[in-house]
Amino acid sequence: MGEPVAFRCLTCGRQHAPWSVDDVCPRCGPVAGALEVEYDYPYLSRRLSRGTFAESRRLSLWRYEPLLPVSEKHAVPLRAGWTPLYACPTLAAELGLGALWVKDDTVNPTASCKDRGTAVTVAAARKLGRAALVCASTGNAATSTAGFCAAGGIPCYIFVPRSAPRAKLAQLVAFGATVFPVDGVYGDAFQVAVQAGRRFGWYNRSDGMNPMVVEGNKTGAFEVGEELRCDLPEFALVSVGDGAVVAGLAKGFLELVRVGLAERVPRVYGVQAAGAAAVAHAFARHQEGKPILPAREEAETVADSIRVDRPQDALRAVKAVAKTEGGFVTVTDEEIVAATQELARRTGVFAEPSGAAPYAGLLRLVVEGRIPSGSRVVLFVTGSGLKDPEGALRGVEMPEVIPPTLDAVAEAVEG
Amino acid sequence: MGEPVAFRCLTCGRQHAPWSVDDVCPRCGPVAGALEVEYDYPYLSRRLSRGTFAESRRLSLWRYEPLLPVSEKHAVPLRAGWTPLYACPTLAAELGLGALWVKDDTVNPTASCKDRGTAVTVAAARKLGRAALVCASTGNAATSTAGFCAAGGIPCYIFVPRSAPRAKLAQLVAFGATVFPVDGVYGDAFQVAVQAGRRFGWYNRSDGMNPMVVEGNKTGAFEVGEELRCDLPEFALVSVGDGAVVAGLAKGFLELVRVGLAERVPRVYGVQAAGAAAVAHAFARHQEGKPILPAREEAETVADSIRVDRPQDALRAVKAVAKTEGGFVTVTDEEIVAATQELARRTGVFAEPSGAAPYAGLLRLVVEGRIPSGSRVVLFVTGSGLKDPEGALRGVEMPEVIPPTLDAVAEAVEG
Repeated sequence: MGEPVAFRCLTCGRQHAPWSVDDVCPRCGPVAGALEVEYDYPYLSRRLSRGTFAESRRLSLWRYEPLLPVSEKHAVPLRAGWTPLYACPTLAAELGLGALWVKDDTVNPTASCKDRGTAVTVAAARKLGRAALVCASTGNAATSTAGFCAAGGIPCYIFVPRSAPRAKLAQLVAFGATVFPVDGVYGDAFQVAVQAGRRFGWYNRSDGMNPMVVEGNKTGAFEVGEELRCDLPEFALVSVGDGAVVAGLAKGFLELVRVGLAERVPRVYGVQAAGAAAVAHAFARHQEGKPILPAREEAETVADSIRVDRPQDALRAVKAVAKTEGGFVTVTDEEIVAATQELARRTGVFAEPSGAAPYAGLLRLVVEGRIPSGSRVVLFVTGSGLKDPEGALRGVEMPEVIPPTLDAVAEAVEG
Repeated sequence: MGEPVAFRCLTCGRQHAPWSVDDVCPRCGPVAGALEVEYDYPYLSRRLSRGTFAESRRLSLWRYEPLLPVSEKHAVPLRAGWTPLYACPTLAAELGLGALWVKDDTVNPTASCKDRGTAVTVAAARKLGRAALVCASTGNAATSTAGFCAAGGIPCYIFVPRSAPRAKLAQLVAFGATVFPVDGVYGDAFQVAVQAGRRFGWYNRSDGMNPMVVEGNKTGAFEVGEELRCDLPEFALVSVGDGAVVAGLAKGFLELVRVGLAERVPRVYGVQAAGAAAVAHAFARHQEGKPILPAREEAETVADSIRVDRPQDALRAVKAVAKTEGGFVTVTDEEIVAATQELARRTGVFAEPSGAAPYAGLLRLVVEGRIPSGSRVVLFVTGSGLKDPEGALRGVEMPEVIPPTLDAVAEAVEG
């Protein structure tokens, strides 16, 4: 039912036959040539109802197979998606909101939302008969690719800048990935990964290259839609690095409307660190009618998963967010650090700094009046605090040692 | 439907009225006085069928509410349980097994199986109107307690030995727990926690103290039963520290038989590190008709979550394993390190060393012929490798840096 009708280039508009191109439009190249997977929406509107998904017994993103480009029969075993959506009525009331939900994507198989894009991309690789995957990333996308390839017994090749931390490299190696630390920065690793993928026929899962990644990422929006019986909130916030996650989320909400399951989309807000805000800057240019495509910018933030100097999926992110009439907001590292602790303390969800950034963005949008009181809001928490304990734990005050006696406890408790 | 009929002492046999005692039998004290929650099994047999659970829309351990002592209405939002069960046909064939499954409890809300016991214990605290929780632990149980209390807005008090690692303390503090590093070893922290809990009315979630913990832990067995349509495997393996997890698992399988949903229980095997094998030793004494209760033993292993010198739930663990006609197996640190990598590489499940120990135990039991060829086996993976990256990554060979050129990649790939 979900067979794509075209892979359309976001810049030149050319409609490539589905599966005739692996990653980007050959004419427009990386970033500019991002492809969007299009379906026969009128047909899907007639075939789909809210019950279609509610009746599904699948406890993963594959419950949305009718709106995905690949069938579950090609998927590897790891269970991505169908993660919890937690209502936070007390927090909502304190912030003057009508409702607040936290979508906890930290409980995906490799502990980040990247598993959504990976699940669909790896399934597509199997459908296409590709022998291996390639991914350039230092973080969650690489880990996710390595984990899913391990589960499927598929070789994978990971390119990272030589500065990548030892613990992250070692986890990739444990998953059996072939890891290439490249003598250069992230951009060099990205380029070599593209070249090697083309030379050896490896299917590319790097953010921004492969439209399948966004097809997986959009399922987070479907899940929110299903859980809220398609009565979508007015705002959805998610952190932005390369841009593939926010692009997917916005596409998912937009598709729910296109197939007639929801009335209107939430305004999707991308949250970036003030020190690593290339996509936010591109969005501002877009609003002024200027060219979107970002040059490399300095990128420095405590939130390493969104520390991106040249975002590979900026075009797609900006266009998708604009379609939802959403926007971007930037937050300082101090706000991100405070949000990480506040989110853990108030909801029990322990996020990495980038995962908690949307909470910081929410506070700012509420204070600035950009989110009016009474609004219903969903925050996407993209990655686990266990991914980056040092980052997640900055600013935590350590407790004092006490003697092993009840009196010492009583004194501490009763003051 | 699941209202308990008694809390029975495993040593003196006295049947306490349900909820009349919080933790251990007052006559027999800690460890010896472990209480078992008993239900009206004949009644449950008449009321339950396999369809009872299959029809449930609850995507958490609360789908088994009819076999739990507390109702979901008392639960806090975090979604514990109903974790994936992955079939591993290739690995099974290589090991000469009839089938092999991996139960991935790393995707629980705080990334370990401890969330099962915590979910039920915190719900019980709310049912009983207790104002706070207390837990002594340096590891997963403490994190789990702090996370669930954060989600429920419930104060919690965590007692740890002063040697507890900074990162673990800081995560507890981030969850808003009041943390007491005690000037002493784990046993001192445990004692003070018991005393303080009694003095201030805090409900105790420490392993071995509260029968609610085991009631939560048993749901892992229910899930395996449901997924395999109650055609249970012949063997189930899980790592053992204090003993509460293996005790819960065995009780869960036994209850499936007692309520008539399954024909026979798997033999449950506890897996311990050779250097921290107090429960295995207690089991050996039990087999020889000697007293079970363990003294403190030296405990040294790479698998820090099962590095337990005086197991607080040994009696319950030994009795439950014996009832399933299972046993214990010990594995070396070398075997655990190798298993951690092999499990990640072959299944995509990245476990902490204690979580991978059952895979090491499996290899040993197969080699020793204690698990016959053709057997169907389930491994419980109890905690995420992200909990202990250093431990999980021992022995990983790091890759070499290459120049940022396609030629360099080609040389590495084509040799």
